[in-house]
Amino acid sequence: MHLDLSIPALQARYRAGLTPLQFVEMLHDKMCAEDAALDRNIWIRRLSLDEIRVYALALENRDMDSLPLYGIPFAIKDNIDLAGIVTTAACAEFSYLPEVSATAVQRLIDAGAIPIGKTNLDQFATGLVGTRSPYGACKNSINPAYVSGGSSAGSAVSVALGLASFSLGTDTAGSGRVPAMFNNLIGLKPSCGRIPTTGVVPACRTLDVVSIFALTAGDAASVLACAQGLDDQDAYSRTLPPHGHDFGVAPAFKFGVPRQADLAFHGNAEGPGQFAKAIAHLQALGGTPVEIDLRPFLAVAALLYDGPWVAERYQAIRSFIESQPEALHPVTLAITEKAKNISAADTFSSLYKLKALERETRKQWLDIDCMLTPTAITPYTIEAVNANPIVLNSNLGYYTNYVNLLDLAAVAVPTGFMSDAMDSMPWGVTLVAPAGKDLPLLSLAARLHAACVLSVGATEHAPHRLPQAVPSAAAFPSGLVQVAVCG
Amino acid sequence: MHLDLSIPALQARYRAGLTPLQFVEMLHDKMCAEDAALDRNIWIRRLSLDEIRVYALALENRDMDSLPLYGIPFAIKDNIDLAGIVTTAACAEFSYLPEVSATAVQRLIDAGAIPIGKTNLDQFATGLVGTRSPYGACKNSINPAYVSGGSSAGSAVSVALGLASFSLGTDTAGSGRVPAMFNNLIGLKPSCGRIPTTGVVPACRTLDVVSIFALTAGDAASVLACAQGLDDQDAYSRTLPPHGHDFGVAPAFKFGVPRQADLAFHGNAEGPGQFAKAIAHLQALGGTPVEIDLRPFLAVAALLYDGPWVAERYQAIRSFIESQPEALHPVTLAITEKAKNISAADTFSSLYKLKALERETRKQWLDIDCMLTPTAITPYTIEAVNANPIVLNSNLGYYTNYVNLLDLAAVAVPTGFMSDAMDSMPWGVTLVAPAGKDLPLLSLAARLHAACVLSVGATEHAPHRLPQAVPSAAAFPSGLVQVAVCG
Repeated sequence: MHLDLSIPALQARYRAGLTPLQFVEMLHDKMCAEDAALDRNIWIRRLSLDEIRVYALALENRDMDSLPLYGIPFAIKDNIDLAGIVTTAACAEFSYLPEVSATAVQRLIDAGAIPIGKTNLDQFATGLVGTRSPYGACKNSINPAYVSGGSSAGSAVSVALGLASFSLGTDTAGSGRVPAMFNNLIGLKPSCGRIPTTGVVPACRTLDVVSIFALTAGDAASVLACAQGLDDQDAYSRTLPPHGHDFGVAPAFKFGVPRQADLAFHGNAEGPGQFAKAIAHLQALGGTPVEIDLRPFLAVAALLYDGPWVAERYQAIRSFIESQPEALHPVTLAITEKAKNISAADTFSSLYKLKALERETRKQWLDIDCMLTPTAITPYTIEAVNANPIVLNSNLGYYTNYVNLLDLAAVAVPTGFMSDAMDSMPWGVTLVAPAGKDLPLLSLAARLHAACVLSVGATEHAPHRLPQAVPSAAAFPSGLVQVAVCG
Repeated sequence: MHLDLSIPALQARYRAGLTPLQFVEMLHDKMCAEDAALDRNIWIRRLSLDEIRVYALALENRDMDSLPLYGIPFAIKDNIDLAGIVTTAACAEFSYLPEVSATAVQRLIDAGAIPIGKTNLDQFATGLVGTRSPYGACKNSINPAYVSGGSSAGSAVSVALGLASFSLGTDTAGSGRVPAMFNNLIGLKPSCGRIPTTGVVPACRTLDVVSIFALTAGDAASVLACAQGLDDQDAYSRTLPPHGHDFGVAPAFKFGVPRQADLAFHGNAEGPGQFAKAIAHLQALGGTPVEIDLRPFLAVAALLYDGPWVAERYQAIRSFIESQPEALHPVTLAITEKAKNISAADTFSSLYKLKALERETRKQWLDIDCMLTPTAITPYTIEAVNANPIVLNSNLGYYTNYVNLLDLAAVAVPTGFMSDAMDSMPWGVTLVAPAGKDLPLLSLAARLHAACVLSVGATEHAPHRLPQAVPSAAAFPSGLVQVAVCG
């Protein structure tokens, strides 16, 4: 059974008479079948049919028109709380039973969405690979020999395999974008603070973002509209500046492209051609490429890896790691323990460097509406990552690490598949812009997506379909004032 | 000779025929006389008459109307560079000879102002007392048995004694406000990033602000207008949001007053009455007091003292303090060395707490235009501070420590003198508002100042005069759009 799970398609089915209860029963059958057949290590805790039914039943007699996500199934990364289901962060010894759902999860449920399970991740969201989990390496949806990408591993794979319409991940250094590319999905990394992180196990609290994997940019926008907004309990949540001019729907726009010298593909011979194709697509949509100097961005990325932010990961689980270090995945432990030797003075020194680099990058935004980069240099096999877990993981963050430190928003967009030589793995690019410009990015992502691809997710499991345009922008005030001039 | 050094008064003299050269010769005579008579330890390096003459001569044949600070003498705290004069930060072993002036200093010179000397300070701007200097404790301008306040000690005293029209200080935790109160002056602590800190010896780079001591709020506004503005070399300099509604000139406004339980005067029996008088003055000007909860502000202040920010002071002089610890003032060394034991994880933990407290304070700003507090709890004698240097210093920051951490602007305003029982020392209050609202604060400060006092500075040395209103706001765009409705 191939259900089209995109939000408008599924809602059309509901309008035609399908009930949420009927639907979740079908979906549950499909999940059971996939589990048996595929063994991708997607779930840490899939909800039982009875547990899912509770949410479906709650929608009976509700007005579909007042619930923008009526009956839409979604998966939740297992570092985000769902009331009544254990949160593990991929560490059983750390796990706890939350009484209330994360703010973002609750807002989605309130909008009619149906949670279906808690997904596997790189332990404590530390990683971009999806292999650093005691629940097994999460396998790629397109080709199980490859990594899923991480840390939001199962969240991406579940959507790509057609088990959920969308999913929540988290994205501190690229965890919501790298898995999107590797699984042929849209990956929205919203502006920092746009979606509250209340009820999320912190990785780096100053940088953590709840991210959205979706089949289309339009679906991502619909989910964002429901999940976003200030939360008194999260001091890092914020009201963002209005997005201003919507370059995403403009007939002409300018997009930054890194200088040739700053592009890296780490031996992926098809990367340059794939990236050139994406540039050509944007040009065909009215975009003018502008060469930008990626070096200050890359210097920021280096700060993330060598700088003090790992101490946030340490601080987040400080009493746990001090009492039960043996409970951690060995790679996660090795990374996190490095934080012990970083001083406050070192920390401020890095904050100064970041501030100076941010100032350098700011000038470049004056010339462009958004920036285009590859999402990741290349997909890796699980075997390759296991052989060299730290270095290959670092490589994957080349184009993603700097984004949150610089307070940018980003959308990962699938743009096609590589050749047999690259095992027909998907390729993707990321559109990046300053905080607040989520909607223009999604609008442009929708157009680029539609121009590039005829399939979404793992094509043998999810439906072939054309992406939709981003829906009404009512939830995203532009800040532009409409002036009527009368004379 | 009592010269009225306020900017409009001195400029009137220039228009009447006085030349800058004539003026600086008179001023130099006065400085020499004060030096001999008073021995206040104001200067670390007063400029020679020849050195001052260079600046005065440079004004010959210049158009007065194009130079807003034409011929205006100013003093510079000796942690701010003046080209060609050694900067010590009150540590001779640390000193260096700058080739260029600090951005703020150069902008003032470019506007016609004349530097007259480098002033004494608490070493490395670490202190609120003015006694922590190997150049001698700076003595109060009103009563030399009392501390000048610090760390911008000599900057305040030089203006109060009528030796400069205004001076530059720095203010990280209160160093531009406490000395203003103790010397009966206006002390402007501008919004963070408004005046660049390029060419300033850092204390806490994330919090440091160049401050202005002036005879009137109008003078402070004139100096700010010349010194403010982005500087590419200072990543922390910034363009601030427009100030919006100017509550400082509005016929009605609301001002926050701390709950009785949060007020502290540490045994100063006259403090409550003095503060009540200031409240009554603001009410008479159209203000409605609104009780606010100062506890989250005070919790932020506690973070500054016990938290990681001292590591910024350590980082600022790291190689120096590691190689020549014996060169530091013993109190400064003891404070700064504590930073060694603070970790990156502790640092982030404090940043989280600050963020949460900032969120708590933000709600209170919804109800008020500005906040009124005492500037400091009470003046202390030099003898008392020497007997208990750490605790009494901390006490002085009770109402000032939280301001920069919360990204607020502040103006200290003299409001009168205490009785003989308090040695007729001056009293003062501080007006505080969110970043960007410097001009409304100065406008209100001018009105409060005019309502309260008939003298400025040390009354036996500086002229008795009425404060002026804040001049034209052209340099401070409000961000309000003027709409003409035609029908």
